[in-house]
Amino acid sequence: MASKPRWLTPAEESAWRKYIVASRRLLEALDDDLSRNGLSLSDYEILVHLSDAQDRRLRMSDLADKTILSRSRLSHRIKYMEGKGWVERHKCATDKRGTWAVMTTKGWNSIVKAAPDHVESIRKRFIDQISKADQVNIANAFEKVEDNLRKDLKL
Amino acid sequence: MASKPRWLTPAEESAWRKYIVASRRLLEALDDDLSRNGLSLSDYEILVHLSDAQDRRLRMSDLADKTILSRSRLSHRIKYMEGKGWVERHKCATDKRGTWAVMTTKGWNSIVKAAPDHVESIRKRFIDQISKADQVNIANAFEKVEDNLRKDLKL
Repeated sequence: MASKPRWLTPAEESAWRKYIVASRRLLEALDDDLSRNGLSLSDYEILVHLSDAQDRRLRMSDLADKTILSRSRLSHRIKYMEGKGWVERHKCATDKRGTWAVMTTKGWNSIVKAAPDHVESIRKRFIDQISKADQVNIANAFEKVEDNLRKDLKL
Repeated sequence: MASKPRWLTPAEESAWRKYIVASRRLLEALDDDLSRNGLSLSDYEILVHLSDAQDRRLRMSDLADKTILSRSRLSHRIKYMEGKGWVERHKCATDKRGTWAVMTTKGWNSIVKAAPDHVESIRKRFIDQISKADQVNIANAFEKVEDNLRKDLKL
């Protein structure tokens, strides 16, 4: 860095520290909770996107876009999930370069089984701790953070 | 779960999805940025706590408390950081059961070197994306999330 660092102000530092300490611990706790159902938070997230999609299948490129994962991180993850029998990869009939990620019945059963515990864990550790106004503020703020990250990933 | 799952309302679902998708990706991006300076986000966080402490040392129990890490996760992390030469573990002279985590000169130099890039990366990916009001809201909301996680860790 050639220019002088733009150090954080006390208010910025406070927001950043509170956010990062709580978030890292929150993600660990949710991962620990989910692991009792044999899933990780990233497995769960991918399975949710597939379960929302028509015929429970998405092109790898669309799945990468929805999860804001780089293609290499997503491929790595899907390979693992294929080993677990939760998804299969199918070649596109119409597009030789394209690949579909297809959710299996085993994958579907896994999130159906995990969902009630997972939602309880999200409530207890996150939603029930914050006000309705916080929910709206957080949705808006993280939408902006997400839009920027998404832009950056495409460069 | 015996009782009926308390599924999320659309507003809760939106807050949760926005938060989790952006946060997971944000943490990955910050980790990627920091890795150019040979550190991970959790290494950096631990080194910051040590650098703020008197004589750049903290009892392991105090460090676990500040980072909200379980003793086993912290021990695992400190063992790795000891291997890198960033910290040393010293037995307490006055308390046979106690151990200090002590930052080395190499550890100090590592965060001094990484800090300007890291703060730029926090600004670009997080602080500069949100308003001043968002900063205050996020600090307050995540303080409540943190207090609850902390309580839970002590049970």
